[in-house]
Amino acid sequence: MKREEALQRIKPHLTEHRYAHTLGVLESALLLAERYGADQKKAELAAIFHDYAKFRNKEEMRALVQERLSDKSILDYGDELLHAPCGAYYVAQEVGITDEEILNAIRYHTTGRPGMSLLEKIIFLADYIEPGRVFKGVEEVREIAQKDLDRAIVAALANTVTFLLKRGQLVYPKTIDTYNHLIAEAKKA
Amino acid sequence: MKREEALQRIKPHLTEHRYAHTLGVLESALLLAERYGADQKKAELAAIFHDYAKFRNKEEMRALVQERLSDKSILDYGDELLHAPCGAYYVAQEVGITDEEILNAIRYHTTGRPGMSLLEKIIFLADYIEPGRVFKGVEEVREIAQKDLDRAIVAALANTVTFLLKRGQLVYPKTIDTYNHLIAEAKKA
Repeated sequence: MKREEALQRIKPHLTEHRYAHTLGVLESALLLAERYGADQKKAELAAIFHDYAKFRNKEEMRALVQERLSDKSILDYGDELLHAPCGAYYVAQEVGITDEEILNAIRYHTTGRPGMSLLEKIIFLADYIEPGRVFKGVEEVREIAQKDLDRAIVAALANTVTFLLKRGQLVYPKTIDTYNHLIAEAKKA
Repeated sequence: MKREEALQRIKPHLTEHRYAHTLGVLESALLLAERYGADQKKAELAAIFHDYAKFRNKEEMRALVQERLSDKSILDYGDELLHAPCGAYYVAQEVGITDEEILNAIRYHTTGRPGMSLLEKIIFLADYIEPGRVFKGVEEVREIAQKDLDRAIVAALANTVTFLLKRGQLVYPKTIDTYNHLIAEAKKA
């Protein structure tokens, strides 16, 4: 699928603000793919479709997880986690993308998972550092991302979890597993 | 066992500094037990023996976990986690304390666990807020501890995990589970 066609496919599903965010993720993902040697075409499609389900009906997505998806654990950790795994499902069903690498990059872009592929890491990080992001700590993560993909993801995960802890919000266990996995790998290296 | 005898039993196992810490934990645990209606005698013994294995040989403790304890998951998360579960084991074997409530309060005083008993919560929190503790955030947790045991533990867990994240250290998953469990319980209430 050509870039223009992909962008046309997602536009009706997003607000103007979220469409601009998606263009930012696309830009960052292509830069990261070039820097770290990932497939440019897959990075492009994963970036464009990563928030495909962002504004889908929450009840519909809960039902989808309950009935069709193997990992139901996200249901206990807040509606914000629904759109990534449900997005992967809808993109396969409705857009016809079947490449599992692309679908996994969409599926895990919010939570991460232990043992992420290069493409998954790139989409996770691009979503965090795209030029439109302005929250505390993002500039530091952008700088680390120039040199070390894993360290940048560790910093992004640490920021996100710290933010949740400060607000007394639930922390998705797999996000901690992802952090621990990357720390343990760095120690081995 | 009388308080004086218990103190005599632990003294040879601790440094002067750690013995003073233990007296602080004892003081805080008795105050918390009174405030929240826990068994004073059990709180006394659990507090006195909570750091019984603090200075035991790390290799010996690793071997003990490997060979005798059911939960081996702590082995991957740093030596600092060994002394609590190993302490419970040694206190049973060497001191002859068999009360499971007391042993669990010792066993989980560092990591916590989902569904902690009142006594476990008191020892966990007393260890964090005892008068000798001077780290960042402790005063706030002391204040919350006057009013709400669970909220104080949530704040202590959040501080501890934030500290670990800031330093790029591993986070024990059960500690996050404990935090999530208390947050979810508070939402239900």
